[in-house]
Amino acid sequence: MKNFTDYYEKRRSEVEKELRNSLVLVSNSPLKDNIEYVFSMGGKRVRPLLTIFAAEAVGECSDDAMRAAVAIEILHNFTLVHDDIMDNADTRRGKSTVHITSGVNTAILVGDLMIALAYDCVEKCDTKNLQGIMRIFNEGVKEVCNGQALDESLSKCTGGSMPQYMEMISKKTGALLMTAGKLGALLGGGSEAEIALLGDFGLNIGIAFQILDDMLDLEGDNDRFGKPRGLDIIERKKSYLFLKAQQLMDNNEFKVVSDAYNKTSVAEIDVLAVRDAYQKSGTFDAAKREVAEYTARALSSLNMLKESDGKDALVELANSLVQRRF
Amino acid sequence: MKNFTDYYEKRRSEVEKELRNSLVLVSNSPLKDNIEYVFSMGGKRVRPLLTIFAAEAVGECSDDAMRAAVAIEILHNFTLVHDDIMDNADTRRGKSTVHITSGVNTAILVGDLMIALAYDCVEKCDTKNLQGIMRIFNEGVKEVCNGQALDESLSKCTGGSMPQYMEMISKKTGALLMTAGKLGALLGGGSEAEIALLGDFGLNIGIAFQILDDMLDLEGDNDRFGKPRGLDIIERKKSYLFLKAQQLMDNNEFKVVSDAYNKTSVAEIDVLAVRDAYQKSGTFDAAKREVAEYTARALSSLNMLKESDGKDALVELANSLVQRRF
Repeated sequence: MKNFTDYYEKRRSEVEKELRNSLVLVSNSPLKDNIEYVFSMGGKRVRPLLTIFAAEAVGECSDDAMRAAVAIEILHNFTLVHDDIMDNADTRRGKSTVHITSGVNTAILVGDLMIALAYDCVEKCDTKNLQGIMRIFNEGVKEVCNGQALDESLSKCTGGSMPQYMEMISKKTGALLMTAGKLGALLGGGSEAEIALLGDFGLNIGIAFQILDDMLDLEGDNDRFGKPRGLDIIERKKSYLFLKAQQLMDNNEFKVVSDAYNKTSVAEIDVLAVRDAYQKSGTFDAAKREVAEYTARALSSLNMLKESDGKDALVELANSLVQRRF
Repeated sequence: MKNFTDYYEKRRSEVEKELRNSLVLVSNSPLKDNIEYVFSMGGKRVRPLLTIFAAEAVGECSDDAMRAAVAIEILHNFTLVHDDIMDNADTRRGKSTVHITSGVNTAILVGDLMIALAYDCVEKCDTKNLQGIMRIFNEGVKEVCNGQALDESLSKCTGGSMPQYMEMISKKTGALLMTAGKLGALLGGGSEAEIALLGDFGLNIGIAFQILDDMLDLEGDNDRFGKPRGLDIIERKKSYLFLKAQQLMDNNEFKVVSDAYNKTSVAEIDVLAVRDAYQKSGTFDAAKREVAEYTARALSSLNMLKESDGKDALVELANSLVQRRF
């Protein structure tokens, strides 16, 4: 692996091209333009790249591996469209979300059609093991729905525990990255053991990624991710930080957090007060340790694979994901 | 075929059992109870029975054909859950809809998970032709989404033509019945020609069924189908009757229809006035002729198949569908 960034961008542009090509499968649909719009919202394309690199870590990235990679990215995009409805999110990456541009009903249908489009890409895999591919893919779709359902109930309940949170992010974020790792390994010609290892890699890097995401909610600039700082507080999300702070602080210390969470209108000063409390109590440090721990677990799965450019790319991918500035 | 009703009920109870069995595939889901609730809302199970009878018309109903039958019923139920959100329908078959019992967000997720569950059943087919099955199934999922999208845009636009309506119902209602016919024929071991014929049977009986459904909106008792009479008028649906009346009536005659469609509060007297206008103008008679025409087309597809109990059952199914009292 000479230059990871160049290689990443090369593969990413291939993914973009394949995403656009997949639109031919919905060419007669009144919702085609909506799906094209979702694709145009961009993103890092982490999941398809993980699929591709996983295939390369055990063999090579065939056309089928690329199809599976694109299917997983389409599936990820479906979750964004439906999640944005549920979260009342008006923008994503600085662009209006689909239910804002086209209404909730159309956004529901766009997400539904994207699920079918994802399966359409999977079905095109010219393989004798379509059943094995479908099994892994289905499991991913189901778990990502279950994860979002757990997120919904965790947001609404008055309690909420760290184990519930860990189960939720394992499914909501981890499951698709796990699916990406497994499918890449399967289609790259990997053994059962390699498929399991690359699945574990995806799952653990997904968990690390999500905990980091919770931290970035408070640490980023206000418009850096196209969303306001402290959105988790405004939306009363039981984030990693919230639940860890509950463990680390006494009732008196935690009051500044619960007060902010109970406000009908959360101001910048409330967000900064919560951040300060998280810092003083060691909540941030605990989160950083957790990110490092899950990243290490992910990388230890890779250690058991033979050396390859694909493996190197996965190490770089993992590091780039967890070294986002905060 | 000695007694169709007994045979229908026998097969229907098998479908109910298989539907319940499919829940094991979502046993770890927080949404399992919601899906069980959707199944408990009942229905005639027309689509899975069409799949089963189609398989029997060309061969026999294997376990795989039963799996496909259940997958299609789950898919149909997903469309009901999401359509009810879009249509703001509070009840279905006298029971509260999922977004009423559990909120819109959960209802979106329940529908999403049901799509995955349907594919899960398809994936279990122990066949060398999983790709062929997937292709037909995917096409059905996409078309049913496209049909609902066309319905949405037809409801909202000021115009709306009969060809647009026919395309909409061909996809929204016809596509799943077509999928049922094709998959049944494929898994029953039918030839390409038989698969096409049974697909055409499903499509045409679906179109007949939908036009009849539009008629029943005005003809049924008020609580017969668990929904008020004249709902299409209240919801300003461009039904077959509305579009046909537009063709048959002059502007003066059509005023009673357009007036009712423009009312913010539609009373029983408005509904009866529209019904009267449809009757006098021959709109109902035209609709009846169209139902008979598409039923005849459906039955003519069956004529080209050799005699079998499955074929007899399909004839009975077709007749029972289009002889609903109105």
